[in-house]
Amino acid sequence: MKSARVAYEGDIFHAALMEDRLKLSNGKTVTEEEVVWLPPIQTKTCFALGLNYMDHASELEFQAPEEPLVFLKGPNTFIGHRGRTKRPQDVTHMHYECELAVVIGKQTKNVRQSEAYDYVAGYTIANDYAFRDYLENYYRPNLRVKNRDHSTPLGPWFVDASDITDPMNLKLRTFVNGEKVQEGSTKDMIFGIPHLIEYLSGFMTLNPGDLILTGTPKGTVDTKVGDEVITEIEGLGQLKNTIE
Amino acid sequence: MKSARVAYEGDIFHAALMEDRLKLSNGKTVTEEEVVWLPPIQTKTCFALGLNYMDHASELEFQAPEEPLVFLKGPNTFIGHRGRTKRPQDVTHMHYECELAVVIGKQTKNVRQSEAYDYVAGYTIANDYAFRDYLENYYRPNLRVKNRDHSTPLGPWFVDASDITDPMNLKLRTFVNGEKVQEGSTKDMIFGIPHLIEYLSGFMTLNPGDLILTGTPKGTVDTKVGDEVITEIEGLGQLKNTIE
Repeated sequence: MKSARVAYEGDIFHAALMEDRLKLSNGKTVTEEEVVWLPPIQTKTCFALGLNYMDHASELEFQAPEEPLVFLKGPNTFIGHRGRTKRPQDVTHMHYECELAVVIGKQTKNVRQSEAYDYVAGYTIANDYAFRDYLENYYRPNLRVKNRDHSTPLGPWFVDASDITDPMNLKLRTFVNGEKVQEGSTKDMIFGIPHLIEYLSGFMTLNPGDLILTGTPKGTVDTKVGDEVITEIEGLGQLKNTIE
Repeated sequence: MKSARVAYEGDIFHAALMEDRLKLSNGKTVTEEEVVWLPPIQTKTCFALGLNYMDHASELEFQAPEEPLVFLKGPNTFIGHRGRTKRPQDVTHMHYECELAVVIGKQTKNVRQSEAYDYVAGYTIANDYAFRDYLENYYRPNLRVKNRDHSTPLGPWFVDASDITDPMNLKLRTFVNGEKVQEGSTKDMIFGIPHLIEYLSGFMTLNPGDLILTGTPKGTVDTKVGDEVITEIEGLGQLKNTIE
């Protein structure tokens, strides 16, 4: 099942897709333009991966990491579908990054890869913009690269894990103003979802609502004010964002 | 004023110091051993500084940074006064780090150093343990160094900003099993509190409940199971933690 979180007439509702309209948790049916889309889950700790696709690491002229390069993101960074992200005046490289986001559903510590999917509630799409001017090195980026306000659209939908047959074999694509600019597959991750869950839960507790942004493939280029950026993942939909 | 957050008989209360006892927000007076101390504030985004004291940077044989080295900490890391922190089996270096923690009180973006203190609600003590085995480089430490469960005692008190005449001139000391092992002063920070607030608010919004752990001076050494570690800051009290 797919569910969204939206604001409508002064309140926040869960919403489901009904043909081409949204059915709100109060029973009302509205169009997708009538609501403000929020991130589909209320995130707790949010982990993000650097250089988790070999082709993207090569593109940036970095070596592939020997273990996951993980950093944290603050709650200020998230916005929903159809939101607007500011291009700061002090940057010359603002790169979209289409990423599969894994939502943890149950508390766990020291889980093995073979049981890791038992702790996944579902998935959504993240567009984890990077402001590359400030990237000093490939170890855990500076907060100016990855922690600006509203720099990480999430959504539109939270999709139940049971609806995704193989999360390690999904096409990712990004379109800027309708033109395809990035294409890849989650099968090309360096560290796959079970590996990441085993790794993180090996030294800290994972909790429901924790989110793992699993990295982006090759094909990130600069965007400019006014661009409409759509990040798409097979089975999860299309997440739209506008640069302002 | 000093206030704590404590758990007592199935509920959570604010608590004030009354001579040598605690007065709870329900009116009851108890001893400090009768309660479970929680972190004195419910944190939102938590920033932490690497190498923000020149003597500590030298001790680790690193250069002083040219701009603040900031990383984020997850909510799993915090515990209160008199809590227990596990020494993981896979580390050989578990270092205490006595740090002044600055609590943001009002939302702000792009604040200048001269107005920065207007956005500070108060202060507390942090002991931001580092598990140095996993430190790959000095840019923003690996989550295994700085994001383990319960690795950051906070407290005991939240102290109002108005009670601290000069936060940039406070003595910090750490005692292990009663022996003084670390001593310094906040006046030796490389980037002071106003600088850090200007820097962070220059590219992201700071919110009430955000916390800035401002770094630690020289004198961190290994600790072992059973050690009682007390981090002390002038005017803020003594934060006690036991290694288990």
